[in-house]
Amino acid sequence: MAQDCIFCKIVAGEIPANIVYRDEHVTAFHDISPKTPVHVLIVPNRHFDSLGALAAEDAQEVGHLLAAAHQIAQEAGVASTGYRLCFNMGRDANLVVYHLHAHLMGGRRLGWPPG
Amino acid sequence: MAQDCIFCKIVAGEIPANIVYRDEHVTAFHDISPKTPVHVLIVPNRHFDSLGALAAEDAQEVGHLLAAAHQIAQEAGVASTGYRLCFNMGRDANLVVYHLHAHLMGGRRLGWPPG
Repeated sequence: MAQDCIFCKIVAGEIPANIVYRDEHVTAFHDISPKTPVHVLIVPNRHFDSLGALAAEDAQEVGHLLAAAHQIAQEAGVASTGYRLCFNMGRDANLVVYHLHAHLMGGRRLGWPPG
Repeated sequence: MAQDCIFCKIVAGEIPANIVYRDEHVTAFHDISPKTPVHVLIVPNRHFDSLGALAAEDAQEVGHLLAAAHQIAQEAGVASTGYRLCFNMGRDANLVVYHLHAHLMGGRRLGWPPG
């Protein structure tokens, strides 16, 4: 757990969030500023600053996030209609919280390009 | 390899592509219709239709894609300025090729929401 990381605190239950999924490696909760009818954040329970912080041995743990994303999409009712899963990195993607996370967005048609 | 899958054929070298990265698990190449100054597709070498096709034992292989993405971003010169990594699933995300892939996009400020 990283000090003063809001997502670490959500994973630890120290800050409330509307949690929709949780397992050994991953926690998912509603984005507080949703931009689509379904807008869920999925975070690894373990703190990684970003994709750049991943070591080879972390692949299984973060890969699990991708499989969990589909299960979360199913539970949110968007697996059959479609969804987008986005990781933002750094300034040009307006990254705000430096705990690796994916935005799962769906429930309407999504435009292209994605930003 | 899935029959008639264009990304399987790119991985196998049967269709040309501007390949920028390749390792045991992952191949990356320029999108033929780039929407950002850097717009690279990253695909697992093994065919998965979508995130929904992943089994638990595939986590390491696809997790490697996430770590490789950062290395590809570094080589493309956008790791420090930032980038977005997007997986599109199904109709609402306008998915066209059913071989799991991520769009790595950067080189300019990216808007929000992502589509």
